[in-house]
Amino acid sequence: MSKVISVGIVGYGNLGRGVEAAIRQNPDMKLEAIFTRRNPESIDAGTPMVSISDIEQYKGKIDVMILCGGSAKDLPDQGPYLAQHFHTVDSFDTHALIPEYFQKVDDAAQSSGHVSVISTGWDPGLFSLNRLLAEAVLPEGKEYTFWGKGVSQGHSDAIRRVEGVRNGIQYTIPHEAAVERVRSGSNPELTTREKHLRECYVVLEDGADSEAVADEIRNMPNYFADYETIVHFVTEEVLRAEHSKMPHGGNVIRSGQTGQDNASTQLIEFSLKLDSNPEFTASVLVAYARAGYRLAQAGQKGAKTVFDVPFGLLSPKSPEQLRKELL
Amino acid sequence: MSKVISVGIVGYGNLGRGVEAAIRQNPDMKLEAIFTRRNPESIDAGTPMVSISDIEQYKGKIDVMILCGGSAKDLPDQGPYLAQHFHTVDSFDTHALIPEYFQKVDDAAQSSGHVSVISTGWDPGLFSLNRLLAEAVLPEGKEYTFWGKGVSQGHSDAIRRVEGVRNGIQYTIPHEAAVERVRSGSNPELTTREKHLRECYVVLEDGADSEAVADEIRNMPNYFADYETIVHFVTEEVLRAEHSKMPHGGNVIRSGQTGQDNASTQLIEFSLKLDSNPEFTASVLVAYARAGYRLAQAGQKGAKTVFDVPFGLLSPKSPEQLRKELL
Repeated sequence: MSKVISVGIVGYGNLGRGVEAAIRQNPDMKLEAIFTRRNPESIDAGTPMVSISDIEQYKGKIDVMILCGGSAKDLPDQGPYLAQHFHTVDSFDTHALIPEYFQKVDDAAQSSGHVSVISTGWDPGLFSLNRLLAEAVLPEGKEYTFWGKGVSQGHSDAIRRVEGVRNGIQYTIPHEAAVERVRSGSNPELTTREKHLRECYVVLEDGADSEAVADEIRNMPNYFADYETIVHFVTEEVLRAEHSKMPHGGNVIRSGQTGQDNASTQLIEFSLKLDSNPEFTASVLVAYARAGYRLAQAGQKGAKTVFDVPFGLLSPKSPEQLRKELL
Repeated sequence: MSKVISVGIVGYGNLGRGVEAAIRQNPDMKLEAIFTRRNPESIDAGTPMVSISDIEQYKGKIDVMILCGGSAKDLPDQGPYLAQHFHTVDSFDTHALIPEYFQKVDDAAQSSGHVSVISTGWDPGLFSLNRLLAEAVLPEGKEYTFWGKGVSQGHSDAIRRVEGVRNGIQYTIPHEAAVERVRSGSNPELTTREKHLRECYVVLEDGADSEAVADEIRNMPNYFADYETIVHFVTEEVLRAEHSKMPHGGNVIRSGQTGQDNASTQLIEFSLKLDSNPEFTASVLVAYARAGYRLAQAGQKGAKTVFDVPFGLLSPKSPEQLRKELL
C-alpha cells in the first residue's frame, strides 16, 4: 500500500458521520480532523473537532477534504472556497445547478492547482455513470430511472409545511408494474403517475382536520398532484419508532436494440437497495476522495466529475492486482 | 461532433458482424474495411473486405482496429502484432491469462506509441467494472457473480465431444433461490451447485445409447460433475429452430455493511439480460474503440483496460453535455 491519505471532514451531520465510519473501513486513509460551524467543544467524536474558521491552518496537513454540507446552503460557498486551499470531494446534488457549480469550483481549483471531484454519491454519481455507460453501449434505446423505496427529504419538508401537520415523512415508491414493463424490453411510454407513487406518514397537530390535511397534501402542485398519493395518519411515537431510518435506492434501466434490423433486445440494469442513504453516499465520497487524491498526484487539476475518473483509481489495489483479481 | 473516427474490423464471425451493425448506430464512426483470413472475394458485406495479410497497408488510414477474433487462437498473436501498427480494442476473455496478454500488448503498444484497450465486453468488461466499483464503495462486504441464462460455448463444445452425440448446446442457469438469498443481504456461503444449474439439449447419433450419453455428460469432471445437470434429447430440427440464438446475461451483486457498528446493509446490483451475447459484446467494443482513440489523441499510449478508461470518453457527447444531461 502507498502512503496513508489524510482526510478532513467538513460538516458533521448524517453524511459526515457516515464518512467518519466509512474511513474506518479503508486502512489506506486516516481521518485527521472534523470541521464544523458549531462550537467544536460541544461535540464529542473521538477525532479532533475544529472550527471551520480555522480550516486554512490545515493546509499541507490534509490531503483531501470531504465536504459533507448540504447542496442548498453549504456547498455553493464551501465548494469554491475550499477548492482554493485543498483537494476536495463533494456530493452536490442539485441537478439543474451542476454546470454552474462545476464552473465555480473549476475556476478555484484550476487557479490553485487542486483537484475537486464534485457531485459524487449515487444520484448524481453511480446512477449517472450507469446512464452514461448504457447510453454509450446501446445508443438506440431508452433509459428509465426509478427511485425508491426511499425517503425524499424535499417531499417530507413539503408535508411538514402544511397547516395542521406537526411532523411527517414521505416515501417515494416505484410502481413494480412499471419496472417490470421496462424490464420486458418493450420501451413503454410511462407517465409520472405510472412510474412512482408517494406514501406519506403524517402526525397531526391537536384538533387538526385530517380530511383537509390529506386533501391539501394530495393536491399540492409539483410535489404530489401528479402522483397517486397515499396519506396515513400516525402518532409521533409510531413515526419515531417505524420511520426514523433513511432507506433509499432505485434502478437505472436501459433497454436497447442491436444487430441487423435491430432484432435483438438488450437490457442493462443497475440497482441499489440501501438501508441508509447518507451512509452509502458517504462510502461513495470516500472512494472518490481516494481517486481525487490520486488524480492530483498524477498532476491533474480542476473540477472533475465521476465521468472523468477511471474506476481503477477508486480502489486501494494496484493496477496489476486489479487486472489479476477483478478483471 | 469532432472528426469521424475510421474503424477497421479484424475477423468477420458473429462478433465482427455485431461490430459492423453497432458502428451503424454511431454516427461519429465510419467502418473503413473488414480484414479476414478467408478469401476476401468470397464474402459479400457491403464494406471493403481485405485479406489480413494486407492490413499494414492501412496504416494511417484507420484510427482504431476492433479485434473480433477468438481469445484461444486469434488474439494471443493478433493483439500484440496489431498494437505495433494501430490503436486497437479487443475482448480477450481468458481471465487467467489476462496479466500475460496485457504485458505483451503493452510492450508492443508502448514501443509503437499506440493505445490498446484489452479485455472489454461484459465479462471481462462491464461486470469487472462493477466488481471493482462495488468493492471500492463497500469494502466490508461480499461479491457474487451469477451468469445466465445463457449459452456457454465451452460447455456446448464439451457435450459435442461425447461419443454418440451429433450436436448439442448447453445453458448456464442461475438458481433464482440463490440470487434471492444474496439480494436479501445475508451474504450466504454458496456452493457451486447452489449457484448455477446446467441444462443441455442433445441430438444423438443414430443408434446411440441415450442413458449412457446422459450419464457421461452428468459426470464429466470440471464441466458438469459439480452441478445439477439436466439433459434433454431433441432432434436436429428442434435444436436449430429453438436453440440457435445466443442469449446470455447475469448479475454482479455485492452486499456490504456500513455505519457505526456496521448496522446498515447496502446492496449494489448490476445485471444484463441479453438477446444476443456477441452483438452486446460488439456494442461494448465500439464504445471502447471511441475511448481508445480519444486516449490516444490525449497523448496516452500502451495497453489499457476498462479500469483505466473514464466513462466520459465512451460517449460521443462533450463533457459539458454529459454534465448537463446525464449527471
